Amino acid sequence: MAAKDPLVLTGKDEMRKWSRLMRSHGKTIALVPTMGYLHQGHLSLIQEAHKHAQLIVVSIYVNPGQFSPSEDLSTYPSDFHGDMLKLKSVPGGVDVVFCPKNLYDYSNDSGDKQKNKNGNESLGGGGSVSCVEEKGNGHETWVRVERLEKGLCGKSRPVFFRGVATIVTKLFHIVEPDVAVFGKKDYQQWRIIQRMVRDLDFAIEIVGSEVMRDNDGLALSSRNVHLSAEEREKALSISKSLLKAKSGAKDGQVKCRELKDLAILTITQAGGRIDYAEIVDQESLEAVEEINSPVVFCIAAWFGKVRLIDNMEINI
Amino acid sequence: MAAKDPLVLTGKDEMRKWSRLMRSHGKTIALVPTMGYLHQGHLSLIQEAHKHAQLIVVSIYVNPGQFSPSEDLSTYPSDFHGDMLKLKSVPGGVDVVFCPKNLYDYSNDSGDKQKNKNGNESLGGGGSVSCVEEKGNGHETWVRVERLEKGLCGKSRPVFFRGVATIVTKLFHIVEPDVAVFGKKDYQQWRIIQRMVRDLDFAIEIVGSEVMRDNDGLALSSRNVHLSAEEREKALSISKSLLKAKSGAKDGQVKCRELKDLAILTITQAGGRIDYAEIVDQESLEAVEEINSPVVFCIAAWFGKVRLIDNMEINI
Repeated sequence: MAAKDPLVLTGKDEMRKWSRLMRSHGKTIALVPTMGYLHQGHLSLIQEAHKHAQLIVVSIYVNPGQFSPSEDLSTYPSDFHGDMLKLKSVPGGVDVVFCPKNLYDYSNDSGDKQKNKNGNESLGGGGSVSCVEEKGNGHETWVRVERLEKGLCGKSRPVFFRGVATIVTKLFHIVEPDVAVFGKKDYQQWRIIQRMVRDLDFAIEIVGSEVMRDNDGLALSSRNVHLSAEEREKALSISKSLLKAKSGAKDGQVKCRELKDLAILTITQAGGRIDYAEIVDQESLEAVEEINSPVVFCIAAWFGKVRLIDNMEINI
Repeated sequence: MAAKDPLVLTGKDEMRKWSRLMRSHGKTIALVPTMGYLHQGHLSLIQEAHKHAQLIVVSIYVNPGQFSPSEDLSTYPSDFHGDMLKLKSVPGGVDVVFCPKNLYDYSNDSGDKQKNKNGNESLGGGGSVSCVEEKGNGHETWVRVERLEKGLCGKSRPVFFRGVATIVTKLFHIVEPDVAVFGKKDYQQWRIIQRMVRDLDFAIEIVGSEVMRDNDGLALSSRNVHLSAEEREKALSISKSLLKAKSGAKDGQVKCRELKDLAILTITQAGGRIDYAEIVDQESLEAVEEINSPVVFCIAAWFGKVRLIDNMEINI
């Protein structure tokens, strides 16, 4: 397939202007939000996006608002040059790459007449700042999906989904897409964004795209790059456990306590440290005791310094 | 001026469709959000809106999400017929009156494939339900402007600004205006919406419109209708106190403690019960001790069963 050079935009205003121009020409736009360091999982989101809209915007932005100070913002991998090469080669191509510098710095906003008098926003290019400063005239507005954000990853990452919902809201307002595509690998995130879109009446269709796996079964993630060969081998215990639980459930083993215990044992014995292993309702994300409706088995576990998440829907 | 019959729309989809059609014709749209029971204050917002856009949408919706269970949702005054007569006669007219039934009921949303399985949303037509139910698959997404919402009215009305920011977000997504006009009578609300629009990158200009007063000085409010003649007379102590403080400040009396004490004394002696009397920075809404930059004196006080708010900017 012929390579296509995406337009690279960094400013909010120019991004929105492009979207509005395209819309005025009757074009539909899909947004694929990413934090960069793209892999085949991201590219599959773009291919999914092509099924739903005529033009594709990929955003690349490592969002400080979703990292707590103790988390890995400063070591989050990035490779803009590599990302661009991948985006150029993706079937159907990408029309715009939106890579803003700092979406929490309002001092240069054209529409903003309020100067940042206190000068408290220090997110700039500093890789060591890990969350948004909450004082002075800096950013202070947060979107929360209050029930769905509580469980699973929300327990160990208290500001994570607040940060995700807020940055997605901002990107939606800047890009003004008709459709946005999210990976079901981040299952809770996908459900939270769906709920947010419903509750806040966004005129945007949310598409969930299936989990992409390497040949060995490991769910694709930008964080996999931090795994040693040995850790990676151990980490396969996650997807193996999920598959085993799914086939167990299909064979009538529907008691969640047993399915979870087996997965926890398998992962722990492989050398992983469990954050959570929960079988929950696909919509409410509330834990179930027995599988008799559509559920999803969600696991988060540490291998060395890397926290991985994975999940599998079980529809019986 | 010739009367103009506004188009009355109740559905989200038809509202958004109208806005998009008008925008495709190159028209600009201003939204004036109201809870109905319109008075001259609202009409002045519409006249302000005419300065900023070609078409005017007035929304009429008593938002349950901003009332706590103990507040006056069930007695909030309404008069749709009277409102329509006023809107027809306002200079320049109104193009659309958007009066949705229940903006927290998603069971009939065209885009929503998730049935409300638990049936927990009971906001319907029932005037006695005073806030949004927080369980099941009901509404659970809230926008919070975390610093500005804390003080002044936020202290005694803990869910108020969360409800306001959320419903305004919803209305912005449904109406998709270029401009929205808010009254500076609700000063904290106006600042919160400004901040929210900046922080969430809404492409909407927020215009603040000056406080409207009756000839006797009382700030116009839908709640004034609940005042007896005697209470109304006593309530004039608020605007009188604000005026006195303003002229005092202009004469060099810049110590806030003294200005506030005098106002509190005046209102209390008139029979009012103070909720708060604060002199705050116009942007951060943080209390100041001495007036040496633009401030606003904000007062909330009860007269009988009616809670009134008023404020005055002091620019010295």
